[in-house]
Amino acid sequence: MTPDKEREVRASFARQGLMAAIGAVMAELTPGACTLVLPFSDAVGQQHGFFHGGIVGALADSAGGYAALSLAPLESEVVTLEYKVNFLRPAAGQRLVAMGTVLRAGRSVTVARADVFIERNGARVLCATILQSIMAPPAPPLDGR
Amino acid sequence: MTPDKEREVRASFARQGLMAAIGAVMAELTPGACTLVLPFSDAVGQQHGFFHGGIVGALADSAGGYAALSLAPLESEVVTLEYKVNFLRPAAGQRLVAMGTVLRAGRSVTVARADVFIERNGARVLCATILQSIMAPPAPPLDGR
Amino acid sequence: MTPDKEREVRASFARQGLMAAIGAVMAELTPGACTLVLPFSDAVGQQHGFFHGGIVGALADSAGGYAALSLAPLESEVVTLEYKVNFLRPAAGQRLVAMGTVLRAGRSVTVARADVFIERNGARVLCATILQSIMAPPAPPLDGR
Amino acid sequence: MTPDKEREVRASFARQGLMAAIGAVMAELTPGACTLVLPFSDAVGQQHGFFHGGIVGALADSAGGYAALSLAPLESEVVTLEYKVNFLRPAAGQRLVAMGTVLRAGRSVTVARADVFIERNGARVLCATILQSIMAPPAPPLDGR
Repeated sequence: MTPDKEREVRASFARQGLMAAIGAVMAELTPGACTLVLPFSDAVGQQHGFFHGGIVGALADSAGGYAALSLAPLESEVVTLEYKVNFLRPAAGQRLVAMGTVLRAGRSVTVARADVFIERNGARVLCATILQSIMAPPAPPLDGR
Repeated sequence: MTPDKEREVRASFARQGLMAAIGAVMAELTPGACTLVLPFSDAVGQQHGFFHGGIVGALADSAGGYAALSLAPLESEVVTLEYKVNFLRPAAGQRLVAMGTVLRAGRSVTVARADVFIERNGARVLCATILQSIMAPPAPPLDGR
Repeated sequence: MTPDKEREVRASFARQGLMAAIGAVMAELTPGACTLVLPFSDAVGQQHGFFHGGIVGALADSAGGYAALSLAPLESEVVTLEYKVNFLRPAAGQRLVAMGTVLRAGRSVTVARADVFIERNGARVLCATILQSIMAPPAPPLDGR
Repeated sequence: MTPDKEREVRASFARQGLMAAIGAVMAELTPGACTLVLPFSDAVGQQHGFFHGGIVGALADSAGGYAALSLAPLESEVVTLEYKVNFLRPAAGQRLVAMGTVLRAGRSVTVARADVFIERNGARVLCATILQSIMAPPAPPLDGR
């Protein structure tokens, strides 16, 4: 990824009011992959003090979306068409880590997967996974920017 | 729904840190249906100033989950197993309204649908819909509480 | 729908080897909606003699896809991007009826829902529902063909 | 897996009328994983002569379901609650290979993933992937059968 592209993707993430409000951070960004991290706070909890399932889905959606954006040309936009999330274990712990990966970047639709891990007392376990479709412009040719 | 049951469901909603933090309100609750309302604020926005798709999913997930809880016996809990959300239009407007409905309350799994509407300048249009599985105890017999 | 369009959609359905092999019939076709019917046979059963869940999904996918095609211009094609099916009751009976409806026909992606009913001894109950994304060209303007 | 368990799982597959009718074969079965193979025929095609998307979904559903059954106690049954399939490429080729894997075997619900590959002229590429919930009894303790 060019420095321009990386700067642009990170700037887009920084403009997401939700992600800023809940304290999510973009940890890693490589072509076709993105990792987001979210520390626990009451503002992202549900009635038992775990991470709210909707936030787990939202974080995973963003991780997959930015993984898709990382492959699109400069100055392009992506839009999530749909996602499906399965919850595997209660998201009870200190930090969520969502890792988005592009499975297939098509001509106009990109399919991504994101796995979400919960960290509790040093251990990291898979707690949710999503499968997602994103409207995204095709990647530029390899000799392009 | 008995007054006890309604009080219990609304108390559970009030304990969800996320819903309180973003300002979501439980507008209606009837057996098998629940409507949640969320006014726009930067804390629920994305990079274009619309509602973040993850929040649209989270609100719909909660609406469907509380629709399921409304049918369960007193002092029971429900857990979302999975949901899938399709985005139909940009959630650009002043208020989101998520209407959850139970499609089928099985012995241990309830299936719900939730439609999400965006209100802009007085008009209300469908902007997303989810289909969801919820682990929930079966409804009490009709002569029970 | 013009007679040309209806003829074209029905001809496309007739070319689907799977639908012919299992004996599915296109019962109704109106703009944005399509109903398919499938009688039970061993070739569509699972180990308990009910309709196989995969066939329930396949029939629903086709009903939604042809609902989308009914709105597209003449000589266009549609392709399912993804679908999600929830099974509500065992598909134990004589006939499946899948009713597809377009929820939103976008510029390049159409979202459809299909409800699947099982008929047993004269009663018809909802046994599954799908939510689906379809790549489809936009509908022609109203004054067009 | 004990020989009894493997025999039982394969016998269940053999009783699925659909799988027999289309010529699907259970290639591999290990604890928590199952691979099914399906050669192309007109009876599983769509209007362009590719594998019908519904069949791709059905094969993947079965691969994930039998992966779940492989972990359940003897004489138990599993039922698919829901699945979601994303199509990544046209299923144009000679053979489909669906590989189901259990992501998480819970107390009553198992979550599985299945990847579907299309083989064309010797090359094998990913053409679809599903994420699936299955109602399944818990695995027996390790010292049990």
